[in-house]
Amino acid sequence: MQTHAQATRALQRRLGPAVDTSDAGRAAASYDSSKLAFKPAAVITPRRRADIGTVLDLANRYRVPVTVRGRGTTLMGSAAPVRGGWVLDMLRLNKIRLDAEAGLIHAQAGARTAAIQRAAEAAGWFYPPDPSSKEHCTIGGNIACNAGGMHGGKYGVTRDFVVALKGYLASGEFVEWGTATRKFAAGFNLRDLWIGSEGMLGIVTDAVLRLIPQPAARWTLLTSFADELAAFRAARALFAAKLQPAICEFLDRHSVQCAESAMATTIFPGQPGKPVILLEFAGSAAEVREGKKAALTWARAHALGHRAARTRAEAEDLWAVRRKCSGAMFQMGDAKLNEDITVPLAAYEKFARFLDRLRKSSRLPIPSFGHLGDGNIHVNIMYHRADADESRRAEKAVQALMEQVVALGGAISGEHGIGLAKTPFLRLQHSPAQIKAMRAVKHALDPHGILNPGKMFEVFEVWKHAKIDVQLPWDHK
Amino acid sequence: MQTHAQATRALQRRLGPAVDTSDAGRAAASYDSSKLAFKPAAVITPRRRADIGTVLDLANRYRVPVTVRGRGTTLMGSAAPVRGGWVLDMLRLNKIRLDAEAGLIHAQAGARTAAIQRAAEAAGWFYPPDPSSKEHCTIGGNIACNAGGMHGGKYGVTRDFVVALKGYLASGEFVEWGTATRKFAAGFNLRDLWIGSEGMLGIVTDAVLRLIPQPAARWTLLTSFADELAAFRAARALFAAKLQPAICEFLDRHSVQCAESAMATTIFPGQPGKPVILLEFAGSAAEVREGKKAALTWARAHALGHRAARTRAEAEDLWAVRRKCSGAMFQMGDAKLNEDITVPLAAYEKFARFLDRLRKSSRLPIPSFGHLGDGNIHVNIMYHRADADESRRAEKAVQALMEQVVALGGAISGEHGIGLAKTPFLRLQHSPAQIKAMRAVKHALDPHGILNPGKMFEVFEVWKHAKIDVQLPWDHK
Repeated sequence: MQTHAQATRALQRRLGPAVDTSDAGRAAASYDSSKLAFKPAAVITPRRRADIGTVLDLANRYRVPVTVRGRGTTLMGSAAPVRGGWVLDMLRLNKIRLDAEAGLIHAQAGARTAAIQRAAEAAGWFYPPDPSSKEHCTIGGNIACNAGGMHGGKYGVTRDFVVALKGYLASGEFVEWGTATRKFAAGFNLRDLWIGSEGMLGIVTDAVLRLIPQPAARWTLLTSFADELAAFRAARALFAAKLQPAICEFLDRHSVQCAESAMATTIFPGQPGKPVILLEFAGSAAEVREGKKAALTWARAHALGHRAARTRAEAEDLWAVRRKCSGAMFQMGDAKLNEDITVPLAAYEKFARFLDRLRKSSRLPIPSFGHLGDGNIHVNIMYHRADADESRRAEKAVQALMEQVVALGGAISGEHGIGLAKTPFLRLQHSPAQIKAMRAVKHALDPHGILNPGKMFEVFEVWKHAKIDVQLPWDHK
Repeated sequence: MQTHAQATRALQRRLGPAVDTSDAGRAAASYDSSKLAFKPAAVITPRRRADIGTVLDLANRYRVPVTVRGRGTTLMGSAAPVRGGWVLDMLRLNKIRLDAEAGLIHAQAGARTAAIQRAAEAAGWFYPPDPSSKEHCTIGGNIACNAGGMHGGKYGVTRDFVVALKGYLASGEFVEWGTATRKFAAGFNLRDLWIGSEGMLGIVTDAVLRLIPQPAARWTLLTSFADELAAFRAARALFAAKLQPAICEFLDRHSVQCAESAMATTIFPGQPGKPVILLEFAGSAAEVREGKKAALTWARAHALGHRAARTRAEAEDLWAVRRKCSGAMFQMGDAKLNEDITVPLAAYEKFARFLDRLRKSSRLPIPSFGHLGDGNIHVNIMYHRADADESRRAEKAVQALMEQVVALGGAISGEHGIGLAKTPFLRLQHSPAQIKAMRAVKHALDPHGILNPGKMFEVFEVWKHAKIDVQLPWDHK
């Protein structure tokens, strides 16, 4: 790896204290939630937008890799500086301005998602995208990977709420994509090309996000099923009946067992370890009343058991099941391949049967849960890193999973992106022509390849790399 | 202009009767609704998807321009083969398949928008984007210009409903962008880059569109105001109160006068020529009841007069105002510069005052109407083509309009795209860096510049070009 010493000195002359070359600073910026660590030559924390232009100008001149990071909550390694160079830390550019009349939020890339949601909520507005790391992650990171969350099925994902972006081309030139109006049909849509491009096509500094009215009412219903097939069949009936829950979370029996063991209780007394679907209806009082009526009719017809929350506190109790399951999975292994795949609605049962086969053939625990409204299921392959045989079986299982997902017409990633972790599977999803087109776009917008190099197109097998031993604030306990 | 005779002969050998070189066929494909005519060397009507690969393969080899067309309802000249070459007529690829369970429509590019809406409606689903030409235009055309319509404010535009695309790269290679699932985060987002790219970055053959449940109830309210300022102020109050009408159409006094003269009646008796806002609330019965109550409170506080439809027939009567205004404008001139600009909500009153000044300074009728939910206002500059002085004033007025729109933070096009007609203003909207980035993407995806050349980036002053005298089925009478 190059040290980029001359370039870094030139940068220090231009930006002074915004450039950190200390060992501690570089170590802190060397990894994200993937815990794959690569030490950068320097960490730059811009205090004003124009600093980014300066960084990119020099990076182009000296061919220094530039990796952008927010909080680094990504599990994919998208913010890990795998080719060294400079890390651009966006956390100081974190202003939020609400346009309460128009229902828009103007946010800088380093603003936290939860802070945006709270600013909206204070004025009666709602920003639906809710990655589970929302208290920590930044909107810039959400845009970089087109983050989703539990509200995706009804409301959509980050892309569906971005109205306009500002930022820098790889060349260091400032650009604006779109205006603060909902319609825009002037020129090629580089706004949406940037969204989900994982810091490889440009650097977002500012976003305008649209909001929807804060739902006046919410109602939560927990339902259990005999097995996964019954749960998936019930979900299909729910959507075919055009019910539109704001949230429709599924937990398979293995995830439920994790939650029940963590909570030391049985969710439905007398029925331990049954898969569940957790529904939340949101909207005006009248809408929620309608949803409730229809959902109870559906639950009586399809579910083994159901329990509605009468109060917000009871609803929180029901949600505890969902929150507890992830952390408890680490009883089953110290390593988790968390794959955020999607499958089309019509393939839900086929997929459930595949997962059963995969558990048997891999002899690994594979608890799964996810967002049934948009087909985004998190498949968690658990194993012990030190166990070479388990590791090999996990590697084989993830390959089989991805092949099956694509064969069913689904996606290898619904909301995490590719980064390093998904690179071995990109060619399952995309044909050579598709990858050639993407690489042509990359080369057109970043001819020197300085933006987040080593990601997306170059195969990186995470399971062959050591991870650092560090506990992050958002790690499941 | 080249005749491309050798290339056309080679194409005929490959595709036979799908290639039309007759004078009548070429004349029919020489223009779109812009009525700017340029004769192509041949018109190809693919019967199967793979024919398009063949066309593009030869077009690249012989450097023949390829312009895709659906019905040619675009007013921008986007489907006019300004550089000659081949026109690809997509009307035969028009299959529609509904996935009623998942709420998805699989449509080929040549399918008509209204046919898609009807297929959805028959199963209780709703496809909201509704360009006014929806009975004629194709979904491929809608995707090419990211078409909008009256439902944009609440529901969004074409882009917001496209889940996946299939089609051809300029190279003739088949590609698929996205899967039939709502979440997709695998690789660069070329799906959305294609949407709104006006046939310049690839050719769409198939789309998967998401649907929402068909609203069970609708309720229409017509309101009038003392003047445009009062109407815009009232609209701001409506949105600030978080009312979410499915439609919020505005007609200024000049548009109302057109409608009233066409209908030989006064909309609000005793108050002729007052600007109006036409609201439609849609949703479940309960939602519409809530909207109705809030809207009536709002109307009593802000409107001069208001009239609700008690029946669907009465609602149709109210909508006649909106439908009649456009055609009646041709009493004021035989030429119309119809500019689909957008302005942010906060600039509505400033924009109304600007339009008053523009009418005075240009001494031209400029009736305006539009979609207040998304700031998309259609400004119609009327003049007589044969009158050189009026033509000059119209040209000056459109330039002043576009400068003002951009100064207010708006867009030069909200739903029509650039084509030929908006090319003189692209550089008002986009900086040199932005245009350079767009052109770099164009070159990356279409290195020989065969896809719809002469559009978007090359300035074409429509007012300096003769239009053909032809009446199209969707022309306003």
